[in-house]
Formats: sequence, structure tokens, C-alpha cells
Amino acid sequence: MGLIYVGIRVTDLERSVKFYTGALGLKERKRGKMSHGGLWVGLIDPVTSVSLELNWYPPDSPFHSPYTPGEGLDHIGFEVPDAKATIRAVIAAGGELAVAPWLEDGRYWIGFVKDPDGNWLEIQGLATATPAAPKT
Amino acid sequence: MGLIYVGIRVTDLERSVKFYTGALGLKERKRGKMSHGGLWVGLIDPVTSVSLELNWYPPDSPFHSPYTPGEGLDHIGFEVPDAKATIRAVIAAGGELAVAPWLEDGRYWIGFVKDPDGNWLEIQGLATATPAAPKT
Repeated sequence: MGLIYVGIRVTDLERSVKFYTGALGLKERKRGKMSHGGLWVGLIDPVTSVSLELNWYPPDSPFHSPYTPGEGLDHIGFEVPDAKATIRAVIAAGGELAVAPWLEDGRYWIGFVKDPDGNWLEIQGLATATPAAPKT
Repeated sequence: MGLIYVGIRVTDLERSVKFYTGALGLKERKRGKMSHGGLWVGLIDPVTSVSLELNWYPPDSPFHSPYTPGEGLDHIGFEVPDAKATIRAVIAAGGELAVAPWLEDGRYWIGFVKDPDGNWLEIQGLATATPAAPKT
């Protein structure tokens, strides 16, 4: 009861399901059809139990509109064991580098990649988890 | 480890903190400053433990850009005891009605309101929790 999930809009539902369940490790939990024809897929992180919903609207839906990422969604945050390795894997899976990883406070590697629709994902991981990382 | 939160962008940080910690019941958990001058506030739902981050960028930030809600963020989902009462409370607190509540499958009242920046919030609640609700 309360805040239960955040839903993002995607332009190719299966592409996005594959993207988020790939290198980022989310699992598909449920999917459904909206009364006006839109489709949604509920994803969940099996470790943190945090949910992300993917929403897709057909061209004739009253909720369909030209897709621009916009400013409402700032980013989706992931903490992973090896940030730089995950960023490489996400790019290999169709993501795009937005901000190359930097060492924050000497403790975290943080970088940003974009999902297939251009939405920003923050990928962070403890620096101690990547002993081979170059010093900056 | 994994998906830990979703962050939205806001244009007035304190207005949004007040909005989300008001009728929607989130609590401020931590806040900080980004190295380039942006500010963030981490909110958490004390019941579901789901997090929402608010991000604000000053005009001279490299990440500042004209604000349009866009299509990346579809909506933020809340389940509440009485959807129609919460929708009224959210509107009274500065929200705007986007889609008036309807009875879905005879089981849930679902409606959409916009936050002060125009981002959509889904407010849903079991119909049995609102015995005085008119039949549709």
C-alpha cells in the first residue's frame, strides 16, 4: 500500500523487455492489456524487489503521442557489483553510453547509459569491487 | 544490489518534496548535492520501502535543459486505501486531474493525477475499500 512502482513508456515492448531482463537482471513478473489497447509488462528485480513497469501504446490509443524522452524521468538507478563491466554489457545489448564512468568520492564508479528509447540509467558500483580499475 | 530507485526531474525541489510527502505519504530519507551543482532528495515509502528520487539542476548545470514532461516517464503507481479520496487530496495539494477515476473490472478505482511538473501519477484502490462509491 503506497508507492508500488514506476512505469516508463517504451516504443518497442519486446525490445525493452529483452534489454531490461538481460544485462540488468530484471525478471518479467506479469503482463497485461489496457482497456484502450495499450500493453504493459511488470518487471521486478529479484534481489531488491523493486518494480519497473514498461508501457506501450498503439498508434490509435488516446494515450499515444510522439515519443521524446523528455525531462520527467531523470534516470533509473542500478547498483551492481562491477559498474564498468555492467556498462559494457549494457552497451553491447543495445544501450548507448551517456556519461563515461568516473570515480565518485574515491568510493563508487558511476556512469550513465541510455536504454533503447534514450532513457538514462545510472549504473553504480563500489570501487573496491573492481580492483583492476585504473586510478583517476 | 540491482534496481534500487527511479529518479524524476523536478523544477522546484521543495515544492515537490512537499507534494510527495503530503497526501502521498512518502518520507524524506536523504538528500545531497551533485558535483556539478544539482540537488537530489531521496524519498521512500515507509510501508512498501519503494524509493523515488527527486533531481533538480541549476540553470548553469550541464544537465539543465528546458523542462517538458516527455514520454520516458509514463506514470508513478500508488495503491491506496481510498483512491478517490487520495485523488481529491492530491488535487487539493497542487496536483491536477488527468483522468477521472473509473471502476476497473468492478474491483479497482483507478485514476490519474499530475504532479506539479505535469508527471502522471496512477492512484488505485480496491473498490471494497470505498463502500460509498457510486456504481458505474
